[in-house]
Amino acid sequence: MSDTRAIGIFDSGVGGMTVVHEVFKKLPREDVVYFGDTARVPYGTKSPRVVQLFALQDVCFLLKQNVKVLVAACHTVSSVALEPLIQHFHLPILGVVEPGINAALKATRNNRIGVIGTRATILSETYEKKLKEKREGVTVISQPCPLFVPFAEEGWIEGEVITKVARTYLGPLQRQKIDTLILGCTHYPLLKSVIQHVVGEGVTIVDSAEEIASLLKTRLKVLGMENTEERTPHHQFFVSDIPHQFKEVGERFLGKPLTSVTRVDLESIQLENEEEMCRFSCGFR
Amino acid sequence: MSDTRAIGIFDSGVGGMTVVHEVFKKLPREDVVYFGDTARVPYGTKSPRVVQLFALQDVCFLLKQNVKVLVAACHTVSSVALEPLIQHFHLPILGVVEPGINAALKATRNNRIGVIGTRATILSETYEKKLKEKREGVTVISQPCPLFVPFAEEGWIEGEVITKVARTYLGPLQRQKIDTLILGCTHYPLLKSVIQHVVGEGVTIVDSAEEIASLLKTRLKVLGMENTEERTPHHQFFVSDIPHQFKEVGERFLGKPLTSVTRVDLESIQLENEEEMCRFSCGFR
Repeated sequence: MSDTRAIGIFDSGVGGMTVVHEVFKKLPREDVVYFGDTARVPYGTKSPRVVQLFALQDVCFLLKQNVKVLVAACHTVSSVALEPLIQHFHLPILGVVEPGINAALKATRNNRIGVIGTRATILSETYEKKLKEKREGVTVISQPCPLFVPFAEEGWIEGEVITKVARTYLGPLQRQKIDTLILGCTHYPLLKSVIQHVVGEGVTIVDSAEEIASLLKTRLKVLGMENTEERTPHHQFFVSDIPHQFKEVGERFLGKPLTSVTRVDLESIQLENEEEMCRFSCGFR
Repeated sequence: MSDTRAIGIFDSGVGGMTVVHEVFKKLPREDVVYFGDTARVPYGTKSPRVVQLFALQDVCFLLKQNVKVLVAACHTVSSVALEPLIQHFHLPILGVVEPGINAALKATRNNRIGVIGTRATILSETYEKKLKEKREGVTVISQPCPLFVPFAEEGWIEGEVITKVARTYLGPLQRQKIDTLILGCTHYPLLKSVIQHVVGEGVTIVDSAEEIASLLKTRLKVLGMENTEERTPHHQFFVSDIPHQFKEVGERFLGKPLTSVTRVDLESIQLENEEEMCRFSCGFR
């Protein structure tokens, strides 16, 4: 049996397009429905409670698009909201934290792993806890890099200023002699070359976008949910706002032209009625 | 008659605290109710339509607090959403654009005025149009400075990196020989010293927070809406999210300790019923 339903991917904004890009490469037959909450981006500076509420609304929108599996392309959502989402919904929901952790544990030789991300992701300590759960004795050095997101969105991804910002943030990780660095934010792959330059060639950089696409491929196979039909896939992109520069930023993230994007009214993302909202969200309060 | 009702001040986040700070100084007897939409900050990178919708919800929340006058402390709201708000509500609504413009026209000697702000504010061309309406022959040079907001929020307000960022943004304004510069974003007063350093002492910097407080004082007097009772004022601060670092950032903006802050559920900011929402928002679509 071939499952022709789409893969649902969501993010706080356009950053998740880096994940879409990898899914297109590794799963070329699958349809993708993307939702980016561009009206409320960024999530990484907000509290867990608000991120959980927003993630719930994002998921509800994608469920109405009849998706077979959900991918939280946002590290902040994956860090602070994934567990309650998995508990409340019956379809498979994958986050970007787990595959990055597995890749980092495979790559490290000295068991000293660095993690960079938004303030919300780092303060949640999700990466640190999960790395230590999987391997006792691993040393995790975490660093929030809040200015990386606006720099990536503005396209200031090379040159003196971003290099100095990167040196400020990454200096402490270098001094702790990490040999592996997890990019714990969907925006950071855009800054990969400046990050690699600053930490040096001896450090392996783990790009979670590549890892989640591989995991998704395996999972669909195991669950018998692949689309095996030969056909041209149909992709849909939804966002909660189409601001100035959206096309430019979106294409920078996706790595190819962005043709059709539909704006969704924030109000329509609400659940159908208050009772339903309450039932789904009780686990979040 | 003394009007003891509070002044309502709203902003996309904590930036509007710079306005609250000036209102405390110039109107020490007045109560203030503040609302900061910290769950959806920033507004300056979003489309006019979404900013208008969010501003409508902010205003509706403050109206329920029985305020006598509203101040949009956010330049993005003042640039793209003030007119429809004024048309739809019956109480006085003041924005931060007008008083900044008046101060700049008073200050300039060569009629060459610079304006810096978020991308949404600058692309709206509100400052440029209004300056030219008030004085033919004035030359306006505008520059969006999108990285200034995250730098101000992160507290990177001095040193080599922010100075380089400021030089990149402000260089074109200097080459155009402006003698007056309007800080068209509530966050920018925090960067005033680095901005002054980069543009030079010969350029007069207009801080709209000071100007709006003076205008508000005059307006309340003219309308007979001052509070003339001798008493200790009672202030209330509401936000849609209380993220990590909120207290630190809020106090940096307010310039004094931030005691009590109440988080408001985003859902409760909605208007009471759909019909009401529709009626108010029809002018925004």
